Amino acid sequence: MIDGLVITPLEQIRDERGAVLHMLRRDAPHFAGFGEVYFSVVNPGVVKGWRRHREMVMSLCVPKGRVKLVLADQREGSVTAGEIQEIVLGEAPPDYRLVSVPAMVWSGFQCIGEEPAMIANCASIPHAPDEVERLPLESDAIRYVW
Amino acid sequence: MIDGLVITPLEQIRDERGAVLHMLRRDAPHFAGFGEVYFSVVNPGVVKGWRRHREMVMSLCVPKGRVKLVLADQREGSVTAGEIQEIVLGEAPPDYRLVSVPAMVWSGFQCIGEEPAMIANCASIPHAPDEVERLPLESDAIRYVW
Repeated sequence: MIDGLVITPLEQIRDERGAVLHMLRRDAPHFAGFGEVYFSVVNPGVVKGWRRHREMVMSLCVPKGRVKLVLADQREGSVTAGEIQEIVLGEAPPDYRLVSVPAMVWSGFQCIGEEPAMIANCASIPHAPDEVERLPLESDAIRYVW
Repeated sequence: MIDGLVITPLEQIRDERGAVLHMLRRDAPHFAGFGEVYFSVVNPGVVKGWRRHREMVMSLCVPKGRVKLVLADQREGSVTAGEIQEIVLGEAPPDYRLVSVPAMVWSGFQCIGEEPAMIANCASIPHAPDEVERLPLESDAIRYVW
């Protein structure tokens, strides 16, 4: 488990009308501040990545569809530097959970369902282009085959 | 337009991989504070309502499917007291927009698409049961036929 990463089970309340899906409250122990909430839709098979944020803590869940989230720790001095971690997120329990991704950890994700998936990010700071670094999916810097 | 209600167009960035759907930033003029973000899934034809919050300002958008949101203003002293307002929200522009609902305004919503819809609420305070009032859908207090 990458150092600083937090995975929290999320409650769902389902009935015949639909469901209520929890995501994040400001009184949660893993709440890292509120900057912005937005959604990323990813079509079946498509991968989005790699990117890392210098400051933003991402709080991610997938309320629609199914996604493979891949995290790569290349932080200098991290006790888990060099580790790559895969996490399946999705609308069905137990994949319906919140992943808190520390700043400076590389991330990418792939839709692994047959329909488009939606990943929600409740980010600790608002999006700012100069705070994001990107790498191509095939990169010598991150040894991972999507 | 019900007094205090704010409707804000939301940006979508679509490409062949999927989309990024904006929702709410803390530096937006209509940002009312962050308490909790959660999702409500509603099956086709189903109505959820009525309810009103004594304190919570709701910031609502529909990133999946299509919903009719109905708001009823019964606030004493409101310049729009007695008004009922329908707003269509959905994943496709121009229905992809943010509705900021003031406290003490009654709300209900219905899925008007053929697939389940998802409504996201970025609420100004965390959910608290003692802060919510409910009325049955058919109520003499709110003259609206769903």
